[in-house]
Amino acid sequence: MQKGALVYEGKAKQLFLTPDPEVLYVQYKNSATAFNGEKKEEIEGKAQLNNQITALLFERLKEQGIPSHFIEQLSPTEQLVRKVDIIPLEVVVRNIAAGSLAKRLGFDEGQPLKQPLVEFYYKDDALGDPLLTDAHIALLELVSESEKQSLEHLARQINTALQEIFVSIGVTLVDFKVEFGRTADGEILLADEISPDTCRLWDKETNQKLDKDVFRRNLGNLTDGYSIILSRLGGNSQ
Amino acid sequence: MQKGALVYEGKAKQLFLTPDPEVLYVQYKNSATAFNGEKKEEIEGKAQLNNQITALLFERLKEQGIPSHFIEQLSPTEQLVRKVDIIPLEVVVRNIAAGSLAKRLGFDEGQPLKQPLVEFYYKDDALGDPLLTDAHIALLELVSESEKQSLEHLARQINTALQEIFVSIGVTLVDFKVEFGRTADGEILLADEISPDTCRLWDKETNQKLDKDVFRRNLGNLTDGYSIILSRLGGNSQ
Ligand SMILES: Nc1ncnc2c1ncn2[C@@H]1O[C@H](COP(=O)(O)OP(=O)(O)O)[C@@H](O)[C@H]1O
Ligand SMILES: Nc1ncnc2c1ncn2[C@@H]1O[C@H](COP(=O)(O)OP(=O)(O)O)[C@@H](O)[C@H]1O
Ligand SMILES: [Mg+2]
Ligand SMILES: [Mg+2]
Repeated sequence: MQKGALVYEGKAKQLFLTPDPEVLYVQYKNSATAFNGEKKEEIEGKAQLNNQITALLFERLKEQGIPSHFIEQLSPTEQLVRKVDIIPLEVVVRNIAAGSLAKRLGFDEGQPLKQPLVEFYYKDDALGDPLLTDAHIALLELVSESEKQSLEHLARQINTALQEIFVSIGVTLVDFKVEFGRTADGEILLADEISPDTCRLWDKETNQKLDKDVFRRNLGNLTDGYSIILSRLGGNSQ
Repeated sequence: MQKGALVYEGKAKQLFLTPDPEVLYVQYKNSATAFNGEKKEEIEGKAQLNNQITALLFERLKEQGIPSHFIEQLSPTEQLVRKVDIIPLEVVVRNIAAGSLAKRLGFDEGQPLKQPLVEFYYKDDALGDPLLTDAHIALLELVSESEKQSLEHLARQINTALQEIFVSIGVTLVDFKVEFGRTADGEILLADEISPDTCRLWDKETNQKLDKDVFRRNLGNLTDGYSIILSRLGGNSQ
């Protein structure tokens, strides 16, 4: 599939047109960013790790019946996806308290939650991706009540499927963020990426962080953990 | 009623025991605080304004069928209330975007909301009173689902009653915060205070701020606006 004009450049990926108006070409980038873009670095090898991890996970999710934008991996750093209108909600699922939740509600990091928690954040860099209540979502008219319920239901299904995948490779899925979009005919698809940039992943034995917190908190070499995730998922980093 | 031992000193009020274990003696203070106690000042006359405004409003709300802790005003700065176990939720109702909502969601201050918005914040100074979603409230087990619905219903009733009161005195009720508590036998009562410390009140003609934003934003003499509210409500400041 031919790579057309760049249509959007984000913090982690570039999107290009293809001859098919319903298909986009995604080029993963080596940039790592945190704190709403305040901390930024180029990290050799990150693009190919996240592209391949996302491709593997979206394939596994498809086998579990989760509809997504993923079409196929094209190269170590590129994949084809269905173009969607991204719903400006970051849907976060948490199994264990960490990060902003721990800070916000006073939980100890690492404390398991009684049940998975689903949160919605407004995907808006200028506002710093604020947490939204159901009433805020209704006020902003970002999705209908029934769409919001679909998103929450899908997010919980994805959590169950991902937990199964990660537990089988000795990794604890602490939390993750997903984005959804609408196709031209209104279908809701899982979109964007699922990678150590968008999940908290802890080694089950050692509790070693295998995710972007290594970058956020300056804990060492970021790609070490990402490589462990990719290789345990059965991929091979080059 | 005799004033017994001090049982709690907050930022705006002191609570004292009385001979009746179900009754507390509330002494309003002249302190003004903002930004979770970071900004602080003594303001002559504030205690008597807030005590009297709260007393007048709670009496009017009682006439409208809103159950509250209020028993009677004892002096310009003191009132008797029923002792409750405060539910650690600050329930905020907003009719017009202002303050943290405007900042958080990118609304212009002064923009009317399509419908009144109810928000819950965790009353916890150490955590900075964070916004809570319904899922957070369930996780923290602060109230049951049906209690939460009662709180929201009561808050909306209070909003309707307060809007009627304020509109009749030429004041726009922008937003307000209330607290609720449980009596020994489990009844939920409106508690704490309703005053220009806990509401945003704008003059309907001039848009002059008649509330604590004058202190938060250094806009002039705080008690000028509070005195206007008290006298328009039919009270007289001494
Ligand atoms: N299938 C898709 N169709 C259209 N846009 C998508 C799709 N999947 C992801 N996106 C969007 O691509 C953009 C680029 O990704 P990224 O670099 O992560 O951006 P950001 O800096 O906004 O997080 C994001 O805005 C994301 O929502
Ligand atoms: N009827 C009541 N019974 C018991 N406590 C109450 C009652 N009404 C209000 N309170 C509590 O009294 C305390 C003192 O008020 P305030 O000075 O405003 O405190 P704060 O600094 O916590 O806001 C608050 O914790 C408030 O929740
Ligand atoms: Mg992104
Ligand atoms: Mg208070």
